Amino acid sequence: MRTYLDCYPCFLRQALDAARLAGAGDDQQKVVLDHVLEVLRQIELTSTPPEIGDRVHRIVRRKIGSSDPYRQAKEASTGQALALYPRLRKLVTEADEPLDTAIRLSIAGNIIDLALDQHDDDLWGVVERVLDQPFAVDDGASFRLALGRAGQILYLADNTGETVFDRVLIETLDLPVVYAVKGGPILNDATWEDAIAAGVDKVAEVVSTGSDAPGTILGRCSGAFQRLYQKAELVIAKGQANYETLSDEGGHVFFLLQAKCPVIAGDLGVPIGSIVLKQGAGTKPKEEPFR
Amino acid sequence: MRTYLDCYPCFLRQALDAARLAGAGDDQQKVVLDHVLEVLRQIELTSTPPEIGDRVHRIVRRKIGSSDPYRQAKEASTGQALALYPRLRKLVTEADEPLDTAIRLSIAGNIIDLALDQHDDDLWGVVERVLDQPFAVDDGASFRLALGRAGQILYLADNTGETVFDRVLIETLDLPVVYAVKGGPILNDATWEDAIAAGVDKVAEVVSTGSDAPGTILGRCSGAFQRLYQKAELVIAKGQANYETLSDEGGHVFFLLQAKCPVIAGDLGVPIGSIVLKQGAGTKPKEEPFR
Repeated sequence: MRTYLDCYPCFLRQALDAARLAGAGDDQQKVVLDHVLEVLRQIELTSTPPEIGDRVHRIVRRKIGSSDPYRQAKEASTGQALALYPRLRKLVTEADEPLDTAIRLSIAGNIIDLALDQHDDDLWGVVERVLDQPFAVDDGASFRLALGRAGQILYLADNTGETVFDRVLIETLDLPVVYAVKGGPILNDATWEDAIAAGVDKVAEVVSTGSDAPGTILGRCSGAFQRLYQKAELVIAKGQANYETLSDEGGHVFFLLQAKCPVIAGDLGVPIGSIVLKQGAGTKPKEEPFR
Repeated sequence: MRTYLDCYPCFLRQALDAARLAGAGDDQQKVVLDHVLEVLRQIELTSTPPEIGDRVHRIVRRKIGSSDPYRQAKEASTGQALALYPRLRKLVTEADEPLDTAIRLSIAGNIIDLALDQHDDDLWGVVERVLDQPFAVDDGASFRLALGRAGQILYLADNTGETVFDRVLIETLDLPVVYAVKGGPILNDATWEDAIAAGVDKVAEVVSTGSDAPGTILGRCSGAFQRLYQKAELVIAKGQANYETLSDEGGHVFFLLQAKCPVIAGDLGVPIGSIVLKQGAGTKPKEEPFR
């Protein structure tokens, strides 16, 4: 997905939030914003939003000197989600259609977002809403077909805390899963430590993309991850940033997300707050021959 | 009130909205944003937000060539408010405390804002809310005292449509009123035509500030208006932008507004959505001797 002009205000907002979370004073915050303004003057709108976001957050980290402004918030999210884990499991085991319920729970977990100050009650409220909400995009039939054919799943993680909800889905899938997390801290995205804290390693092989950019910018990932990605028969890509970076990468990629941002909702052609299970567009790039 | 870093995203948002309302294509929108980014890199945070807003909207008008992007929306707002006028009058005439009701209605009208897409029902809903809502800042006692002492009122208008609600307050005041509107189109602020369309000329003398900047930037107003302002014993200043530009101009200025923006709410120390009747800080500047 390309970058829209509507993303500009949001990049400034994100930079300011991240700088403040990292404890920056007013002067440092202004230095960060001035650099972000310069980046925005230079960007190509053909870039995906996470490519710009990557540059923005890099400025915050360089100017403020905090490598992980979201650490505390991330730990709180994992704790909050783990407290719900037994209830989430119970919902699946008692469901008439456990796979449908587990998919919906994984999408419910995508609401966890540091733009919002979630309380436990609210999070459970989201779970209940998403269990009943009709899909705005529903490629569930193709997804079930792909699940029946694949030998393994590559699962691209999104936010910390959402990891616990992903774990519930992985436990319900009848296939081995490789769970890919960020190679370093970016926003509240899950890294290796966050996946372990959520217990995902008990149900999947956890690997790193080798990149600390938002979403999955393939050119920024490690060679090992790129080979893993190229070989994948079926990819589950969670959240908005993965949609922004991989929406045209082929029909073997399935996006599970809530449309929280007006620009992404517009690109998907759905109302804000929609739940989405969408098959990717385009053709899977051919695997490069072994050299 | 100074400009906060939180205002930066909002300036970009406003520029984009105004450019689109003026019918700008994608390329023109990008040209506007690139210029606004340059302005934001140069600003002094000691400027008031409307001083920056003035430069931003000037870019939109210069680059898009539309002198009044908000014309249609403004006419719709006046029509919508005029349709409520008989009900507003009835509320005042039947009220136990007509002045209190009229002040509240004038504040209710301040909700009209082109950031929001108001329907008639919603606008009436706001009226009912504001009639019952406690003031978050209530300098009503000082205001009533000042009304008892003044021989005339200078009333600084804000949005178009809100003008109709102002008219109801002016009809309730027992003093002659000079109603000052913008000297040219800026956002959905009321100009001379808008005040006439709302019938304000039937109850007050309508004058122009001589400036098409948001709020009231005294240095940008005409000499005639500046003399009028200096002589004023009592000023009613409507809306956020007048607060932003005049908050420290003396205790003879009274601000009537709804806190719709988080930055202004923060500056006032009140929650978003609050209704405010606030006496200005600082001392009234001495009148310059006649030269």
